[in-house]
Amino acid sequence: MTTADHPGDPSTGDTGVAGPGKYPLGDEIIARIDRLAAISETPEHLARIFLTAEHRAAADLLLSWMREAGMSAHLDAIGNVCGRYEGDRPGLPCLMLGSHYDTVRDAGKWDGPLGIITAICCIADLHRRGRRLPFAVEITGFADEEGVRFASTLLGSRAVAGTFDQSVLGAKDQAGLSMRDALAQFGLDPQHIGAAARTRRDLHAYLELHIEQGPVLERQGLPVGVVTAISGATRLAVRLTGMAGHAGTVPMALRRDALAGAAECIVAIEEFCRTGHDGLVGTVGYINAMPGASNVIPGQVSFTIDMRAPADAQRKLAVADIVRRIEAIVKRRQLALQIDVTHENRTVPCAAWLQSQVSAAIAGEGYRVFELPSGAGHDGMAMIDIADVGMIFVRCRGGISHHPDEHVDLADADAGARVLLRLIEDFRPREPGA
Amino acid sequence: MTTADHPGDPSTGDTGVAGPGKYPLGDEIIARIDRLAAISETPEHLARIFLTAEHRAAADLLLSWMREAGMSAHLDAIGNVCGRYEGDRPGLPCLMLGSHYDTVRDAGKWDGPLGIITAICCIADLHRRGRRLPFAVEITGFADEEGVRFASTLLGSRAVAGTFDQSVLGAKDQAGLSMRDALAQFGLDPQHIGAAARTRRDLHAYLELHIEQGPVLERQGLPVGVVTAISGATRLAVRLTGMAGHAGTVPMALRRDALAGAAECIVAIEEFCRTGHDGLVGTVGYINAMPGASNVIPGQVSFTIDMRAPADAQRKLAVADIVRRIEAIVKRRQLALQIDVTHENRTVPCAAWLQSQVSAAIAGEGYRVFELPSGAGHDGMAMIDIADVGMIFVRCRGGISHHPDEHVDLADADAGARVLLRLIEDFRPREPGA
Repeated sequence: MTTADHPGDPSTGDTGVAGPGKYPLGDEIIARIDRLAAISETPEHLARIFLTAEHRAAADLLLSWMREAGMSAHLDAIGNVCGRYEGDRPGLPCLMLGSHYDTVRDAGKWDGPLGIITAICCIADLHRRGRRLPFAVEITGFADEEGVRFASTLLGSRAVAGTFDQSVLGAKDQAGLSMRDALAQFGLDPQHIGAAARTRRDLHAYLELHIEQGPVLERQGLPVGVVTAISGATRLAVRLTGMAGHAGTVPMALRRDALAGAAECIVAIEEFCRTGHDGLVGTVGYINAMPGASNVIPGQVSFTIDMRAPADAQRKLAVADIVRRIEAIVKRRQLALQIDVTHENRTVPCAAWLQSQVSAAIAGEGYRVFELPSGAGHDGMAMIDIADVGMIFVRCRGGISHHPDEHVDLADADAGARVLLRLIEDFRPREPGA
Repeated sequence: MTTADHPGDPSTGDTGVAGPGKYPLGDEIIARIDRLAAISETPEHLARIFLTAEHRAAADLLLSWMREAGMSAHLDAIGNVCGRYEGDRPGLPCLMLGSHYDTVRDAGKWDGPLGIITAICCIADLHRRGRRLPFAVEITGFADEEGVRFASTLLGSRAVAGTFDQSVLGAKDQAGLSMRDALAQFGLDPQHIGAAARTRRDLHAYLELHIEQGPVLERQGLPVGVVTAISGATRLAVRLTGMAGHAGTVPMALRRDALAGAAECIVAIEEFCRTGHDGLVGTVGYINAMPGASNVIPGQVSFTIDMRAPADAQRKLAVADIVRRIEAIVKRRQLALQIDVTHENRTVPCAAWLQSQVSAAIAGEGYRVFELPSGAGHDGMAMIDIADVGMIFVRCRGGISHHPDEHVDLADADAGARVLLRLIEDFRPREPGA
């Protein structure tokens, strides 16, 4: 655990320090991560896009690993890789583990695959020991979570949850190929996507291990954390209109400067989110000032606001409060205001009973239990419709994700696997009424 | 003076209200303004660009008007239109009046021509009355002030001031034609530009009447104002570098958000300029946040600052103070900072003795004397090298300039002409040592 001694120092890689065999699960995970990462559109930049040839090759590799780990395995109607490790007796409801095996372009190799591969390594360990549990364990490698190809995310988990929107079959990729035709080329029948759907009776729970994609665990000096919720998000498009003018000839007191107004809004958003609103984050990521010349007072400014919080009520109150602050700013400055909600995602709370079991497994492996929300989206956002959801985060270096520099230390991969394995072995389905 | 009763109301045009003959100088000015505005690259959008055929046609029209007004007139080596009305006896030093006759693209018809045409109307009036003065009066219609074609401004007045930079002869327009070749096509010899230069002994003063290009006189309910200085300007390019990150996964306390930092800087710049710094203006007209996606914390932001003030010391202190504030903001936020000065123009103070005579003429015409700086640049910025400079501003509707909506009321054009005429007739050259 060298990184725990040097939180935030990206130069502290553990891989070379550890002696061989010190982290057997971690070693196995990293070997598989590297094999899977070699399956890419181009060798230099990792990209594994939904329904491509490399996507198919990755699916085949995962299926073979699942079978080696003692699981039955098949590709479902949307391209999800589905493995099942029977329990004490055949046909029991399952604990479903999963994550996604598609990537963004120029991706890191951990976002998604770590969850699938860690789960496979855990089942392989159970299988080697001949250990059967009083429930089945399934692993689903979701075919599309990132939504790169058809601009629609969570396609794999939505199919499993039975909430797949048939209308997206007509969506086309940049080359003009429809999802319907891409599925057929991949060897799947678009008519049968409904067959991928599972029901609540099949699942005790859905549990996902994923890299944090943020810097919190690193800052805490911890390899793993308990996720409390997948934060809901509201995205707003804001447009302020004032009066353009000559940068030299309009005195300050006579200006209606849309950018100065926007700047005050951005400062207010940050201030609001910084002060005592647990887990709330607010981001202005895009801004455009028009006409955009150095010697012209901006007459119109557009910007976006992305608000996320681990509870819907909290997020909605925050959005309302920020809108009120913006309204006050523009009124005082005599600017015209347009605000539109462009995107809204509900919060997916992680079930308390699953959080307890994740916490117990973390404590059982000797780590301090630390809870944090997930600000990024995950397949649990779809799976919540048919199962209680739990998540384990594994520390990633510098909080960097969706980038070739994405990195998980060997020791942390091993820690995540030990926590997951303990959780599986100690898993108790939710008691009725709990 | 209906607009004086309704300051700031752009619907109050006076032209229709006034009876014919009520504003004889104004009527003559507007007739000439309209004739000159008809000489344009295209009829729909006024554009009269340096060394084009329409520029030549406009020069010829101005030369003919000068001659009709009893002046000798010629085109100088850079394309300036030069008229001279002799005094009591030939060869006396002159009071030089002037402005420019080139335009921006899609221009208004007043910016520049109003100063030349008002001056011609005043001399025509003297000529009709057979009035000679104890000094000559010259009118210079500068060939290029806007700098549209060769991205270098004040070409006409720099030639007159003897500060023309020969290296710009090699500058090319968008079609790839050099200024040297464009001059030759226009019928001028680029070798002889030095011949356009005048000396301090030739001039008692340089005096320019121009539209305000700002909203101050309209707000004051006044048709004319005394310019105290042409404000100097400093332009800065600022780049803040923080750390890009996922809008959902990085808690507020761990962010190094370059846009939030830039917003705080913009608010600070506005606040500093608003509070008690006479005539100081500061503008952030351009901003770019990278990567610029709604769900990514901006890692780098570039923006410009345009600072102007009617005194160099004031502007330099203000720039230094703002740089210190920015440095404090970026230090607190752990952002990297780069600031470069991209442009610097000295302040051109209007000579106190000329301001006095402008004020006396305004008071003599019955208007309240109101002083204001010019935040926009004018030919006086070049002429200061060979003469004391004075300026009269005429109210323009809504402060709008460089736009087809640019407008001067008939009554205001007339007021400007009466002030200028009185000023010419009452003009007393600067007393030695004054």
